Amino acid sequence: MKAISLLGSTGSIGTQTLEIVDEFPSQFKVVALTAGKNLPLLVKQIQKHNPEIVALADESLLPELEERLNNLDIEQRPKILPQLTGGSDGLNTVASWKSADLVVTGIVGCAGLLPTLAAIRSGKDLALANKETLIAAGPVVLPELKISGSRLLPADSEHSAIFQCLQGTPWAENARLSTGVPTPGLRRIQLTASGGAFRDWSTEELKKATIKDAISHPNWSMGRKITVDSATLMNKGLEVIEAHYLFGLDYDHIEIVIHPQSIIHSMVELADSSVLAQLGWPDMKLPILYCMSWPNRLETPWRRLNLTEVKQLTFSSPDIAKYPCMELAYSAGQSGGTMPAVLNAANEEAVAQFLNEKIHFLDIPKMIEIACERHKKDLNSNPILDDIISVDKWARTIVCEQIYKGTC
Amino acid sequence: MKAISLLGSTGSIGTQTLEIVDEFPSQFKVVALTAGKNLPLLVKQIQKHNPEIVALADESLLPELEERLNNLDIEQRPKILPQLTGGSDGLNTVASWKSADLVVTGIVGCAGLLPTLAAIRSGKDLALANKETLIAAGPVVLPELKISGSRLLPADSEHSAIFQCLQGTPWAENARLSTGVPTPGLRRIQLTASGGAFRDWSTEELKKATIKDAISHPNWSMGRKITVDSATLMNKGLEVIEAHYLFGLDYDHIEIVIHPQSIIHSMVELADSSVLAQLGWPDMKLPILYCMSWPNRLETPWRRLNLTEVKQLTFSSPDIAKYPCMELAYSAGQSGGTMPAVLNAANEEAVAQFLNEKIHFLDIPKMIEIACERHKKDLNSNPILDDIISVDKWARTIVCEQIYKGTC
Repeated sequence: MKAISLLGSTGSIGTQTLEIVDEFPSQFKVVALTAGKNLPLLVKQIQKHNPEIVALADESLLPELEERLNNLDIEQRPKILPQLTGGSDGLNTVASWKSADLVVTGIVGCAGLLPTLAAIRSGKDLALANKETLIAAGPVVLPELKISGSRLLPADSEHSAIFQCLQGTPWAENARLSTGVPTPGLRRIQLTASGGAFRDWSTEELKKATIKDAISHPNWSMGRKITVDSATLMNKGLEVIEAHYLFGLDYDHIEIVIHPQSIIHSMVELADSSVLAQLGWPDMKLPILYCMSWPNRLETPWRRLNLTEVKQLTFSSPDIAKYPCMELAYSAGQSGGTMPAVLNAANEEAVAQFLNEKIHFLDIPKMIEIACERHKKDLNSNPILDDIISVDKWARTIVCEQIYKGTC
Repeated sequence: MKAISLLGSTGSIGTQTLEIVDEFPSQFKVVALTAGKNLPLLVKQIQKHNPEIVALADESLLPELEERLNNLDIEQRPKILPQLTGGSDGLNTVASWKSADLVVTGIVGCAGLLPTLAAIRSGKDLALANKETLIAAGPVVLPELKISGSRLLPADSEHSAIFQCLQGTPWAENARLSTGVPTPGLRRIQLTASGGAFRDWSTEELKKATIKDAISHPNWSMGRKITVDSATLMNKGLEVIEAHYLFGLDYDHIEIVIHPQSIIHSMVELADSSVLAQLGWPDMKLPILYCMSWPNRLETPWRRLNLTEVKQLTFSSPDIAKYPCMELAYSAGQSGGTMPAVLNAANEEAVAQFLNEKIHFLDIPKMIEIACERHKKDLNSNPILDDIISVDKWARTIVCEQIYKGTC
């Protein structure tokens, strides 16, 4: 029985993690939860899973949560109410909760960074769905992993695919202890990209793209922010940076391949030229489950892949001109230090502004480029956590300033 | 430095194995060779590799080999001439040669069975390119593997693909010690088939198929017998039986998928529904090298797979009516015991007769079906080696009888 601490229980990753816990009651139990603002759902999760502790990101909502729990009918109320806590300290407490064997970090964006770091410092294994931890704070996180012995198990489908393909290598044996150093025998990573919502749109048509267009992903069901990132291909750019930190390959050996069917979730080329790929229907539950069951695999009744039903898998090179975010991400990754944090924060802010209808879809890369360009003179190659947090704030301000100035 | 004993050095597998030895002189050396009738090539191989011992399948050719070696110019002659031997005992001596770490068995057909068994009995690891060892003699070989601790490393591309995908499972750790028992976590094997020379021919057009048509494989460069087996899809049927013995899955969980590009070399579905695949250009050198370097991988300068160049991979179900050999193989596999040996021998004989222009392409499955049908009443579920050898001879006679009778 593996005890799970789940950060971000009401989000997309969180709810799918709890579905898995429901499916495998003899394998997993949830001992700690954190959530954002969706209290009705959180209360249901507490009723069902009886965690030992629950933290709210926004402390001010704690009285309301307490009231909702107390107002439950006596037979619907958990026998022992969980310890309730909140704010940054509360999230960190849940992230390093002593009875947890594995921390699943499903908090989207830079908000997930501090609790994820708390989990790493506690030495626990992590199912990492929060990309920003490595992307923004790679230079801070890698030394922490070495100190604590915490192992990062990638929960997004692309890095999970690579992780699965690398089982049986020395790297997998030490999973994540060797993070940031080259993986023995691994020569190239090919991250597959569906191409997102606009894969069949011309650059000209993109000028007319609306929010509704951008948040309709052809294959994957995900949160709005990540779906927009898929449409700009920034999602793939961020995954390139994450893959760099996870598997230790330099950027010249991490490639993006457009694969509209999203059946091959990524590939590795090994030293001898052999290529291994992991395939499946597009469903996040599989990579999440693999983190939870690793190094074992659990029998599932999930829909089985049938390639004769899919009929064909196609591949093409991404259009660099159409998707400038990709290039921005490679360039930020190659600059290293604080630059990926700037890229990531500028992207988060620009996407938020797009979703608030303040800027157009095509303004997203422009905003990010301005922030990265400006940061060049202040690039810190060897940042500490405070530097990361500070450039993160700075980059968001720069994006807002541009919008205020009407650059867009 | 790994010392190799190579059975069948002048054949397709043999010459490619020696090319690998040439490419990696600090990793491999050849200490023992066996060959058939191609003495000029064998002499060159002896000159280049200086083996300690050489055996000829046909003993009567030994004086000629000796003469050819003695007639070499003094500066072209190996400083120490290899020990020369021949016949069945000679092959067995090479197969169990004491200084060899790995035996590569590239002898095609049932002729490879006895020396392969000798290698297994010596406890050495084997790179198995000789399918017939397991297909005809699975029930005899499996107990021998348990006794000697010899490990079978599959050298054909499909089983190598499966083997590569299963690295990191408990099965791979014991590679082949667990042969014949179910592989933990493995739920389904999907063997890919190019569809062979006639994949785009109608059943009607097949009636006009000639030898030349049958030995033109669209993707792979292989020997004539195997190329005909590809055209009938018997090759895939035999691989299904081999996969059953190697990986311990029952026949309901081993499937054939037509994949004309031959880029995905096979796939495994694991317990949680994740699918792993191994990909590469169609080239036998990679699976042979992997056997030789396993559990490591060696850096090669070989052509790297680029899926954006391939553009698309397609998949379909095989046409059972068009390829009766597939069904015959499944059925023989399910019968077990001596039946796969009958299937294999009848196929070898029928293909030989086809290549000798004695029967038509479409007669091949008919010959096999007659032999298997007749063997049903004599099926031995628990055969010893002599039973296998005896039904092998019997099945060949049955095929010849049919031809003599003019059944075709």
